[in-house]
Amino acid sequence: MALIVQKYGGTSVGSIEKIEGVAEKVIATHKQGHDVVVVVSAMSGETNRLIDLARQISEIPNPREYDVLVSTGEQVTIALLSMAIEKLGQAARSYTGHQVHIRTDSAHTKARIMDIDEKRVREDLKAGRIVVVAGFQGVDENGNITTLGRGGSDTTAVALAAALKADECQIYTDVDGVYTTDPRLVPNARRLDRITFEEMLEMASLGSKVLQIRAVEFAGKYGVPLRVLHSTQAGPGTLITYDEEVENMEDAVISGIAFNRDEAELTITGVPDQPGIAYQILGPIGEANIEIDMIIQNIGADGCTDFTFTVHRNDYKKARQILDGIAKELGARQVTGDDTIVKISIVGVGMRSHAGIASTMFGALAKEGINIRMISTSEIKISVVVDEKYLELAVRSLHDVFGLEQKPAA
Amino acid sequence: MALIVQKYGGTSVGSIEKIEGVAEKVIATHKQGHDVVVVVSAMSGETNRLIDLARQISEIPNPREYDVLVSTGEQVTIALLSMAIEKLGQAARSYTGHQVHIRTDSAHTKARIMDIDEKRVREDLKAGRIVVVAGFQGVDENGNITTLGRGGSDTTAVALAAALKADECQIYTDVDGVYTTDPRLVPNARRLDRITFEEMLEMASLGSKVLQIRAVEFAGKYGVPLRVLHSTQAGPGTLITYDEEVENMEDAVISGIAFNRDEAELTITGVPDQPGIAYQILGPIGEANIEIDMIIQNIGADGCTDFTFTVHRNDYKKARQILDGIAKELGARQVTGDDTIVKISIVGVGMRSHAGIASTMFGALAKEGINIRMISTSEIKISVVVDEKYLELAVRSLHDVFGLEQKPAA
Repeated sequence: MALIVQKYGGTSVGSIEKIEGVAEKVIATHKQGHDVVVVVSAMSGETNRLIDLARQISEIPNPREYDVLVSTGEQVTIALLSMAIEKLGQAARSYTGHQVHIRTDSAHTKARIMDIDEKRVREDLKAGRIVVVAGFQGVDENGNITTLGRGGSDTTAVALAAALKADECQIYTDVDGVYTTDPRLVPNARRLDRITFEEMLEMASLGSKVLQIRAVEFAGKYGVPLRVLHSTQAGPGTLITYDEEVENMEDAVISGIAFNRDEAELTITGVPDQPGIAYQILGPIGEANIEIDMIIQNIGADGCTDFTFTVHRNDYKKARQILDGIAKELGARQVTGDDTIVKISIVGVGMRSHAGIASTMFGALAKEGINIRMISTSEIKISVVVDEKYLELAVRSLHDVFGLEQKPAA
Repeated sequence: MALIVQKYGGTSVGSIEKIEGVAEKVIATHKQGHDVVVVVSAMSGETNRLIDLARQISEIPNPREYDVLVSTGEQVTIALLSMAIEKLGQAARSYTGHQVHIRTDSAHTKARIMDIDEKRVREDLKAGRIVVVAGFQGVDENGNITTLGRGGSDTTAVALAAALKADECQIYTDVDGVYTTDPRLVPNARRLDRITFEEMLEMASLGSKVLQIRAVEFAGKYGVPLRVLHSTQAGPGTLITYDEEVENMEDAVISGIAFNRDEAELTITGVPDQPGIAYQILGPIGEANIEIDMIIQNIGADGCTDFTFTVHRNDYKKARQILDGIAKELGARQVTGDDTIVKISIVGVGMRSHAGIASTMFGALAKEGINIRMISTSEIKISVVVDEKYLELAVRSLHDVFGLEQKPAA
C-alpha cells in the first residue's frame, strides 16, 4: 500500500464529464489499496473568466482581492470532484488552501509555500477517505488568501507529497510525458522515460510547459518521485528522479531542447561602473516581485558599463517603468528593450562529461543564419536569446544536430 | 458618525457596472463620516450556475461539498467590490465567512449563525477601511464551510450589525420598501413607512420575499433597526422597528397580506391517538432539517387521529419519503400529500385590539367561492391554505376588503 498524490490540471477537469472521469481514476487507484490525495486546478477557462471580471474593474486590480477572486476557481473544482467521488460510493472530503493550512508568505499572486499542516489529511486517509485539495492557493500568517501564481497547482501537489512523505506524486496533464522538445514544433520529438530533477528544472524553467519550476525544485529538494502522465491515455509517462539512476539508463549527451516565448529583454546603458551597481539596478526590480532570468553585464568605455537582463513578457512594462526611474537616478545614458525575443536552451547532464557541445550548438545556428543576441551557460544547459521569428527554425536545427529523435543506446 | 451595515443582494451586484455603482454608494456613505460594513450576495445567476454544476453530478449532492461550491459565489463578489472601492481610491478589505469567523452550527446548506468575532472588522474600521463581507456563509467549529441557505445574506448583515452594535442595518433590494402585499399581484398595493419586527416576521416567513425571516428575528432580538431600501432609486424605504413606535404612527388594523407559493401539504391518517404521537411523526422530519410550517391534528373515529402539516415544496419529496416510513412503523392507514397549494395570511398588530377580523377574511373568500383547506391563527396573523389556482383572486379580495390601498389616518 502506497500513498499517492495525484494532480489534475484545468484541462483534465474542464467539464463535469471530465471531473467524473477523474473521480473514476482516483477511486481505481484507491481500490488498488493506496491512500490517495488529489490536487486539482480550476476548470479550464474559469481562471480566465475570473481574471476578465477583475480586468473590467481595473487593469492592475488590488492583489489581495485578486487572490480572493481567483482562488474560487479551484474551490469550485474540489467541491465538484468530491461530490462525484461520493456519488460513486467512496468517501471523500475537500479542502481549500485555507482549510488544510497551506501556509505561504504574503506575496499576493506569487506566494511561496512555507509550511503545510498535514494532520487533518492524515486523519481523513486513516478513515479511508480520498482527500481533495485545492491547488494554487494558500493562506498567509494573517489569514489572507494567497495564490501561488499560474501553474501553482503542481507546487501544491509536490509540497503535499513532501509533507505526507508520499511514495509518488503523479502529475496528470494533456501530454503523455516529457519530450525532447515540443512535438508541435518538431514532429519527431521523442518521449523520455526518465529525466533528472536537475534537467527537468532547466526544461521547466526554460519553458517546457509540462511542469511548473517550483514543483520540480520542491520535488528535488525533498526527494519526491515525480511522474508526468496523460490524464486520459494509459502509459508510463516520464519519471523525474535522481541523477545517478538516470545516467545508467540513458547515456544521452543532451536530453532535450527547451524554449521560452514569454521573454523580454531590457538594457540600460552608460551607468557608472562601480561596486554595488548591479544591486542598485536589479534590487528594485526584485522588490517589485519581478523575476529576472538572464543577466549580462558588459564593460563599456569611459568608466561606464551596460546591463542587459530578461524578464517575463507580462512584467515587461512594469520592469521598464522601474528601470526608467533607476536610469534617471543613476544618470544612465538610455534604457532600451525588446519584447519580441525568445530563449532557446539545450539541456543535459551528459554535458558535464562531453566537450564541444557549445560549438556544435553555435555552429548549427550559424549555418541557418540565426543571430545570437545573448548567451548564458550553466553546468547542464546552454541558453541563447534570439529574435522570436527564428524560434521554430532554431529548435528544429538543434533537435537534428543532437540526434534527439533516436533513443540512445543503453 | 454612525456605524452602518449595508447589504446588497444578487441583483444589486449582478454585473461589473452594478458593482461599481455599489462601490460609489458605499464610498458616499463613508464620506458622510460613517463607518461602513458591506455584506454582499453572489452576482445574480451565479448561485444557480453553481447549483446547476452540482446537479449535473448528483440530484442530491453531498451537502458539505455543496456548501464549499456555492460559497464561492459570494467570494467572487467581495473581491470584485473591494477592487472597485480600491480603484476609486478608498481603502477596503474583503472577508469570507471563514476569515471573519462567522461561526455557525454544522447543518450544511441551512446553517445557523452562533457567533461572530468582530475584532478584525473593528480594526479595519478604525484604520479607515470599508469592510466587505461575504453574505450567506460561515464556518463550523471544525473549520468546514457552511451556508445559511438562500437569502442568508440578510442574516449575515443583521448578525454583523448586532455584533458591531451598528446604528442601522440597511438592506438594499430591488424593491423600494415593504408593501401591503406584492404589487405584481395587486397594483394598488402601498409601501409602508414603518412596520414592527413582529409583523415583518410574519410577512417574511409567509412569503414576502423582501427579507429573510431569520434576519428579522435577529434584528428584533438584538434591537437592530432594519431598513429596506431600493438599491438604485432614492427613497426612505421601510423602517422595521419596535412595536410601540409604530402603533403611534399608523393605526391600521392589518398591515399587509403575505402569501407563500412554496408550500406543500402532507397528511397521515389513521394513526393511534396516544401521547407522544405528534413527536413520533414530526420528530424525524425535524431531524432531517426539514422545517415544518402549519400543523393540524383532527381527532378521528375508533381511537385514531389524522395529522396534516405543511413543508417547503423543495422538501416535499424527502418529507413524504420519511413520512411513508413512519406510517409503516405506526401502522397508519395512509399518507397523502399535495404540492399545489399556497398559504395566504393577513398580518397586523392591530388585530390584537380589533374583533371580527377572521370573519371578515373568511367572508371575503367565501364570496369568491374559494375553498379553505387549512386555517391557522396567531395573535397578529390569520393564515389559510388554499388551492394554488385561487392565489391571485384571494389576495386581491383581501387587499380590497381591508382597504389596504389607502394610507390610514394618523
